[in-house]
Amino acid sequence: MKFLEDRIIKDGVVRAGNVLKVDCFLNHQMDISLFQEMAAEWKKRFADKKINKILTIEASGIAIACIAATAFDNCPVVFAKKTESLNVDGPVYSSKVTSFTKKRTYDVFVSRKYLNPGDRVLIVDDFLAVGSALNGLIDIVEQSGATVAGLGIAIEKGFQGGGDSLRAKGFQLESLAIVEKLDAENNTIEFRKE
Amino acid sequence: MKFLEDRIIKDGVVRAGNVLKVDCFLNHQMDISLFQEMAAEWKKRFADKKINKILTIEASGIAIACIAATAFDNCPVVFAKKTESLNVDGPVYSSKVTSFTKKRTYDVFVSRKYLNPGDRVLIVDDFLAVGSALNGLIDIVEQSGATVAGLGIAIEKGFQGGGDSLRAKGFQLESLAIVEKLDAENNTIEFRKE
Repeated sequence: MKFLEDRIIKDGVVRAGNVLKVDCFLNHQMDISLFQEMAAEWKKRFADKKINKILTIEASGIAIACIAATAFDNCPVVFAKKTESLNVDGPVYSSKVTSFTKKRTYDVFVSRKYLNPGDRVLIVDDFLAVGSALNGLIDIVEQSGATVAGLGIAIEKGFQGGGDSLRAKGFQLESLAIVEKLDAENNTIEFRKE
Repeated sequence: MKFLEDRIIKDGVVRAGNVLKVDCFLNHQMDISLFQEMAAEWKKRFADKKINKILTIEASGIAIACIAATAFDNCPVVFAKKTESLNVDGPVYSSKVTSFTKKRTYDVFVSRKYLNPGDRVLIVDDFLAVGSALNGLIDIVEQSGATVAGLGIAIEKGFQGGGDSLRAKGFQLESLAIVEKLDAENNTIEFRKE
């Protein structure tokens, strides 16, 4: 997991308000080779979990989830949508999510057709802070009767507590980099020690 | 390109108002193996184009673009964003896009850092109808001084004219399925003959 920490130190930029900008390789411009390394690491950590589906949330989770799927036998990827669309009809599972960066609350939903009781779901996303998006996705999987087989996150902000709260509930959460401190003034980043 | 037509006939659903629902394999649940076939087909058609970057637009274009990149030496993928985000700063290239399905107009933007005059850009998206999103992305690439090396679309609605208008302007547009007629009453789909 050291490779992602190294990349964050090389290309990440710390901004005031505990903002870590990684849009040059993670969530605006995207480094596909890096995503393949992340996928291989999750495959190793969830090897025995019999994962048959990956769930993520639009927009920046989609890229990571799709490359992750190539390490899990090209299993189907489903992404939760943030607004009602004319193109989704029929019954949905939905939950409420508050965005840390955008400071607003919205409904997220997944068509009921794409989550079923037999499914063993790996939930994937780029960031985990307080855990609102991840808890919304877990809620949706549990509504469907499917099993949350694991949680795969690129960058966890450990100091915001969402990750440890999920670990305490018994979920296998595998964050590939856990940031413990961001210092905007000196542009320094401290990671959690193993 | 026949494989995508076959899949549309097998799993697509036609709805009133010229809506073709393909959310079970293309834009809600996503079939990664199918996307790999699409990527290989684009690689064949754009083999001599020296593509070094792929540009798409959130949300459903991202998945196809990322898998496409694996066929183009894992080149970087950039996605245009639809709303201002606190996490994108600095100067951007922007354009206006009207969504056919959502019936609204919004601004799309790309950070200037991620498009440069030397770039040879393949623009990828899931759908092409009147061409508003695609024209917005072309506008953004041209603002940056980069070259539009090709346009790769999964499903073109040929009867809505956006694709032929771009071909007339000299762009190499490679749509993997071109729908000419949708009949909601009988759930039938006619494709353009070669």
